[in-house]
Amino acid sequence: MHKLVHGGDIYSKREIPENTRLIDFSANINPLGMPLNVKTAIIDNIDNFSCYPDPLCRELIKEISEYEKVQQEYIVCGNGADDILYRISAALKPKRALLTAPAFSEYEQSLKITDCSIIYGYLSESTGFKLDRSILDSITSDIDIMFLCNPNNPTGITVQKDLVLKIAAVCKSNNAVLVVDECFIDFVENTDEYSITDKINDFDNVIVLKAFTKIYAMAGIRLGYAICSDKAVIEKIYNAGQPWSVSVIAQKCGVAAIRETEYVERTRQIIKQNREYLISELKLIGLKVFDSMANYIFFKSENKFLYLELEKYGILIRPCGNYRGLDDTYFRIAVKSREDNEYLIESLKQILNR
Amino acid sequence: MHKLVHGGDIYSKREIPENTRLIDFSANINPLGMPLNVKTAIIDNIDNFSCYPDPLCRELIKEISEYEKVQQEYIVCGNGADDILYRISAALKPKRALLTAPAFSEYEQSLKITDCSIIYGYLSESTGFKLDRSILDSITSDIDIMFLCNPNNPTGITVQKDLVLKIAAVCKSNNAVLVVDECFIDFVENTDEYSITDKINDFDNVIVLKAFTKIYAMAGIRLGYAICSDKAVIEKIYNAGQPWSVSVIAQKCGVAAIRETEYVERTRQIIKQNREYLISELKLIGLKVFDSMANYIFFKSENKFLYLELEKYGILIRPCGNYRGLDDTYFRIAVKSREDNEYLIESLKQILNR
Repeated sequence: MHKLVHGGDIYSKREIPENTRLIDFSANINPLGMPLNVKTAIIDNIDNFSCYPDPLCRELIKEISEYEKVQQEYIVCGNGADDILYRISAALKPKRALLTAPAFSEYEQSLKITDCSIIYGYLSESTGFKLDRSILDSITSDIDIMFLCNPNNPTGITVQKDLVLKIAAVCKSNNAVLVVDECFIDFVENTDEYSITDKINDFDNVIVLKAFTKIYAMAGIRLGYAICSDKAVIEKIYNAGQPWSVSVIAQKCGVAAIRETEYVERTRQIIKQNREYLISELKLIGLKVFDSMANYIFFKSENKFLYLELEKYGILIRPCGNYRGLDDTYFRIAVKSREDNEYLIESLKQILNR
Repeated sequence: MHKLVHGGDIYSKREIPENTRLIDFSANINPLGMPLNVKTAIIDNIDNFSCYPDPLCRELIKEISEYEKVQQEYIVCGNGADDILYRISAALKPKRALLTAPAFSEYEQSLKITDCSIIYGYLSESTGFKLDRSILDSITSDIDIMFLCNPNNPTGITVQKDLVLKIAAVCKSNNAVLVVDECFIDFVENTDEYSITDKINDFDNVIVLKAFTKIYAMAGIRLGYAICSDKAVIEKIYNAGQPWSVSVIAQKCGVAAIRETEYVERTRQIIKQNREYLISELKLIGLKVFDSMANYIFFKSENKFLYLELEKYGILIRPCGNYRGLDDTYFRIAVKSREDNEYLIESLKQILNR
């Protein structure tokens, strides 16, 4: 049987007390839920779902192009950002990759398919899992591709733009492609201090990954995109899989979602408030909490069965023991609504007797 | 710019007279449209689309398992059957493939990604594009994989079950995988005379591909699956791409669709009537028509600009010049509603002065 290795598994049968609502802190989705206009787009377009999607996603790419202020030819859409990861690997067939660890495990999974060898730049607890300039020494001429997650998953820790650009430059001088995964960056305040999409013209070796799934709460619809100023790379990614990967629904929802600028602004404020509340409460409980800037929080507890104990309260969190470079004492939780967050804190207090 | 090579492109701007409805005969989708229960499933589940899909498609696979009368462990779902084609190629990395020609071009496209060399068993007009036992001679020990489309696309011509099973056996004895694409088989009457899903236990080297996209008019939702009695192959296909390829919407729609047995029965009757009408009218016009058993019809016209002339009537058909083994004088049309079919015939009569 296939193994489930990620969060968000609300489908497995569990021993949860009757009349207890399942609250999923294990997937990092906007707690505001899908914008109303996205739901309306689904219902308004229901008769169009019989037709094949536009393989070129023309209407959607036009909108993304305006939103991201990049040329339409620099954009390729996918069935979630994860679809694009596998396409990148299939298209570029890298022989040797550099990953930071811990990081989103799908980078490694997608590289395995093309038998790529991988070296790891380990982040450690002693430096708060922060990426620093020492990573530059690992970018050598035998590296074909590097993946950088900003903010990092599962830690929520951001990398300053100047370091990302320095990494891009060193990759460039070593003929390596740099994939910067900015799938959670829209949850971060002052995005401009971290995102490099405005510098995409300066580095034709950089691919930036973005997702609709998280920020617009469209994880079940699947939509992501990549930006790269090397049009040949965009072409290769497009050709590395089926032409109809982005459903009509995803394209219509994407167009509706990307206009929701006020919703994104409100999201950032709410996430900030709730993240600060959760971090401060987790610290009060005595847990070791790391400096997340994202819509999820990474912490350490010596109770490695914490996630199982929380299930008895109907709460799912993400145990991080299967992340490379971590062990069973690390956990990740999503920032959810005030009510859900309070319930989590109360439940933790009961479990840990604080 | 990426090239569009398939039918179903209703999104490109065209010179179509004002107030003329675009009628798409170039994509082969059930003319009855999406079953009402599928639309209801979309609306009823709209609040679930924020969550990540079940990577294991458990509810859906249970339903498919009952419908196909095969073990759940023999099934893997994809973002349309085409997603599974690329996964098969990525998973099995065949070095040498045997394809029939003409056939669905995505077999070739998916194989190219893993640098597979391809040999072709050409079907010819002289034998009405029918596959016969001579194909068996092409299945040699250096072939790793063979693709067989039944009914074939673009011809609509079926292969009898005994020949498919013979091909499966010869592939087996040559250690080759046989992929049987049955994506259009549910449109054919007496499916049992052609489909080999009931023999899946006899051949662990056979993968059968099926799609929801066509028969349930869900092309814009994307859903397909593969059946194989070698569980290790199912596992490899699953691992050859992202875990969340099948959206929540597709999973919910699939569950609703597969219960629509009366709708499928009605579809077969309507397709049969309308196909017979179209074939007889096309022949009366003097066009050379081949023996389709599917929901599309393959014909020849010396007027190679026929598809452009039809666009002036708002009609899209599929010119087949870009199929390997065909030239610009071949065309494919979908079987649509009586009204649309009559309009097509009237338009053809005007264009060809018949």
